[in-house]
Parts: sequence; structure tokens; C-alpha cells
Amino acid sequence: MSNVGVVGLGPMGMAVARSLLSAGFSVHAFDPRPPVLESFVAAGGKAAADPAAVASAVDIIVLVLANVEQVELVLFGPNGAAAALPVGAVVVVSAAVPPDYPETVSKRLAERDVLMLDAPMSGAGLRAAKGVLSIMASGPPAAFDEAAKVLEAIAEKVYRLGDEVGQGSRIKMINQLLVGIHIAAAAEAVALGIRIGCDPRAVYEAISHSAGNSVMFENRVPHILAGDYTSSLSVDTMVRDLGTALDAARRNTFPLPLTAAAHQQFVAAAAAGDGSAEDVAVIKVFQAQTGIRLPIR
Amino acid sequence: MSNVGVVGLGPMGMAVARSLLSAGFSVHAFDPRPPVLESFVAAGGKAAADPAAVASAVDIIVLVLANVEQVELVLFGPNGAAAALPVGAVVVVSAAVPPDYPETVSKRLAERDVLMLDAPMSGAGLRAAKGVLSIMASGPPAAFDEAAKVLEAIAEKVYRLGDEVGQGSRIKMINQLLVGIHIAAAAEAVALGIRIGCDPRAVYEAISHSAGNSVMFENRVPHILAGDYTSSLSVDTMVRDLGTALDAARRNTFPLPLTAAAHQQFVAAAAAGDGSAEDVAVIKVFQAQTGIRLPIR
Repeated sequence: MSNVGVVGLGPMGMAVARSLLSAGFSVHAFDPRPPVLESFVAAGGKAAADPAAVASAVDIIVLVLANVEQVELVLFGPNGAAAALPVGAVVVVSAAVPPDYPETVSKRLAERDVLMLDAPMSGAGLRAAKGVLSIMASGPPAAFDEAAKVLEAIAEKVYRLGDEVGQGSRIKMINQLLVGIHIAAAAEAVALGIRIGCDPRAVYEAISHSAGNSVMFENRVPHILAGDYTSSLSVDTMVRDLGTALDAARRNTFPLPLTAAAHQQFVAAAAAGDGSAEDVAVIKVFQAQTGIRLPIR
Repeated sequence: MSNVGVVGLGPMGMAVARSLLSAGFSVHAFDPRPPVLESFVAAGGKAAADPAAVASAVDIIVLVLANVEQVELVLFGPNGAAAALPVGAVVVVSAAVPPDYPETVSKRLAERDVLMLDAPMSGAGLRAAKGVLSIMASGPPAAFDEAAKVLEAIAEKVYRLGDEVGQGSRIKMINQLLVGIHIAAAAEAVALGIRIGCDPRAVYEAISHSAGNSVMFENRVPHILAGDYTSSLSVDTMVRDLGTALDAARRNTFPLPLTAAAHQQFVAAAAAGDGSAEDVAVIKVFQAQTGIRLPIR
């Protein structure tokens, strides 16, 4: 049984770790929340005391984390993984980070002769629960060769986006830009429909089979219809992800008019107190502005 | 063989008329362009001299037209269809019109004891060429009963959106609002990708299978990659359709921030001389603003 490490057992990380167990790997994991770690041990995994303990047991470590701060802490903080990894190890990093960040991490790891794949994952809230993910990965061919079986076990589809660390995060950022616009657009479309007297269920039924459909329209509008804003991705996540895209574009002096408009809608939703609600709760901005009646559970 | 009429033999109207021929109807058609009408006769259809001549031969007439002006002319202009239709006939109207317009037409037809279905079609440029359309229809049950076989012959799917004429056009308008936003968003996403050094083909490959996908992203981005802006729907169409949605929203004092941002992008593209180019040529706005290099044929 090959050893592999996972740090971060949120919904996505847990799905990753369980997929690796199913594929026959011996999986060493760390998460700062004891109950989460215990439930993973109950599923057949091995608990480690900290990221360094994971790193010292494996040649490949997968980080499924939220942001730059978490990546810094897990790799380079106290009892961090970087110093404990063997020479030639591969770090697979999945996190929502600015697209220039992976290159700096890669350089610091290279000083220790550790390779890195920039490998954000997609499918959270859609498919992660079923263990079906896609990975948008870039990095050196040697790292891909080394991690091939691990990636295969985790993801339904691995998009190999070039040898340069950073391409994965760039394309993931663009994916999130579209996710955010499409959610805000779905909210705008349904809200207008309600205002002009359409049955929102008819709007959903007709459009989800027509040219106006998007993955987000199809997935999120049923939550509006059910009055249920409790799924895992949040308004705050969209404020962050569209903000990341706007920041990157600004550094490149590049205008993003639709992204900016969508971002403002999510910021308005967060300002109204819905930051931790599901992303499509952005439709409540229209409720507050116009008095439309949304379906309620 | 049942008789049925079709007025308007553009790409969508021709697909409709041919589907009716295939289904065994005797199809009487009018189009002001003689060569178009001749090609329909060659396919087995019957040419009429004007809308009135079509109307006097049938109990059901399908209008596949572009806008209000055309509907007015075909129904109520010189040699128009309305006065020539028999009592109890059904007019199936597919056109891009403001959502309050169908009701006024319906009332004028009712004075002649003629029924109407508000039945915009979707799938142009995607599926019309293959004879596979969806229809977003509303109107009185008696009209649906009468036209059932005709609708079935035309469309893969008929969405029955209520008894009230106008619902079909309202939901079609909302569909077009999303189509326009999604095209402008696809252009914005690909343009940003080019600017920050992504391979646009990798952007397409990864995102078209991920949460950021939309029907428009999947359908239109290949045209950007091919540098081919010659498909049938145009920038001008989007200027019109998003404008229709903005007008309707304004009459209802309803804000549409993403629609407005997308509309401005199409207006900018039209201003630069690309009005008759394919809708996704809206990406050239970014080329002009930022100097990005778009793929060329």
C-alpha cells in the first residue's frame, strides 16, 4: 500500500481523502478539528498530530485548503510540512489563492528539492460529496509523473494545463469569475421574472433546457425555488473569489465590467448580513431593493 | 393532409416549415424574398403571394418573425393575414417582442374570433438547423388543443407556460437576458485569460467541463478560438434583446446591474463597427481597449 498525505479535511478534503482510501492508499491526514480527524480514522485513515507528522510519512502530500494563510501555515508554520518532506517529494496544492502565489511557494519548496503541483479543484457543492471532482493542474512533468496515481484516484478528470505552476490557479480563478457572474445573473433573471409576473418555476423549467442555461443556473435556482440558502458555498466565498479576479485584473490594468457588477451584488448581500448564507442568497439584494416576494420554505 | 401556414422563412422559419413538411402537413408559406420561397417550393412546400393568401388556405398559421414591425405588417398590413383567417383559426406568433405586446395582438385577433399563442422559439444558431427547437408558449387552452400537432411537429420540446398570452415572451426575454450576459461573460473571461498568459484553449477545455460552464460559453468560445465571427446571431441582436429587457425592467422600476453592464459591452462592440458580426465578437471590445491578441483564422 502506497502512503499519501492529506492536510485539510473540509468537505472537499474529506472527499479527496476518502477517494484515496477507496483506491487502496494508506492515507495519513491532519486537520486541526479533532472530531473531523476522528471520523476519518473511523473510515480507515491514519491521524497525524500536525502537518510535519503527515509529511514525514509520505512522498506525496495533498493540501486541500481555503486560502494563502492556510497554505503558509501548513507548509511553513510551526510543525509545518515543508521541512519534514523527503527530498523529491511532491506537494499537490489545492486552494483559492491569487494566481501569482503558487510560483512563490514552488520556489521555496524547490530550495528543499520538493516539487509542487498547482492543482485547484472544482466541483465543490456540486460533486465533491459524490467523490467526483475535476482538478485544474499545472506544474513540472516530473511532479505529474510522480503524482499520477494519486490524481487519478481523486478526480474524475485532471486538466493538465501546462508545465508552469500558476496556470492551474489562473484558470481556476477564471472559472470562479464565471461561477460568480452566472450566480448573480441567475438571481437577476429570476428576480426580474418574479417582478413581471412570471411563475419562477416556469422560468426555471424553460430556461434550464434552453440557450440561457448555465451550470450555476441549473444548480442554484432550485435553491431559490425551495427558499433554501443553506448549501456549502457562501456569499462571502464569492466576495472573495470575484475580488481575487478583480485584484489580478487591476494589477494587469484590465477592465472586468461584468465581474465588477457581480462582485458589487455579492458585497451588497454580505453587507445586508447574508455573507455566510449560500451564494445564491444574493437574490435577497433584489428583495430588499424592490420588495419582490421570494419563495420561502 | 392538414393545411398549415408559415410566414417568414429565415433560418428558423425555414426549419419550422421543413419540419412541418416532414411531419406530413401541406405547408403554405410566404416570404418576401422570391429565391427563399422558391427553395421552399423545391422542398415540397406551397408558395403564397402574400400573408392573406396563406391565411385563407389554413386554420393554423405560424409567424416566425424578427420584431413588432414585422408582426404588425404580416397580420394587419396590406394583404395581411388577420382579415383573411377563418373564424376559430389559431395564430402562433414567434418573434422577439416586448413582453406586453402579445396581449395587444391577442385582443385585436379576438375581435375576429381568432386565437393566438405567444410562442417564441429558442435554439436559433444552436439547433434550428437540425430542426430541433424549443418553444416557450403561453395562451388559451383552446389554442393549445388546436395547435397541438403543429407544435409537436416543430419543436423537440414545448414549454407550456400558462394560459396568459405574454408569459411566453416574458420568459423568452429572460432567457435572452441570460444569453447576453453569458456571452459577454465568456468574452470577459477569455480576454482576461489571454491577458494573464493562459492558453485560451486550456481555458476552454477546463471550464467547459466545470462549474463555470454555460450553454453560451460552450457554444461561442470555440468561435473565438477559431477567430470566426460569422455565425447567425449578431452583436446587434444582443443590443436589441438586452435593450428589450432593460426597457421592460425600467417600466417596472427594476434594477438590472449585470444586464446593463453586458448591454454596454454589446453597444461598444456595435459602436466599433461590429454590429453585424456574431455576438461573441463583443470580445473585440477588450482587444481595442487593452491590445490583447485574439486568435485569428
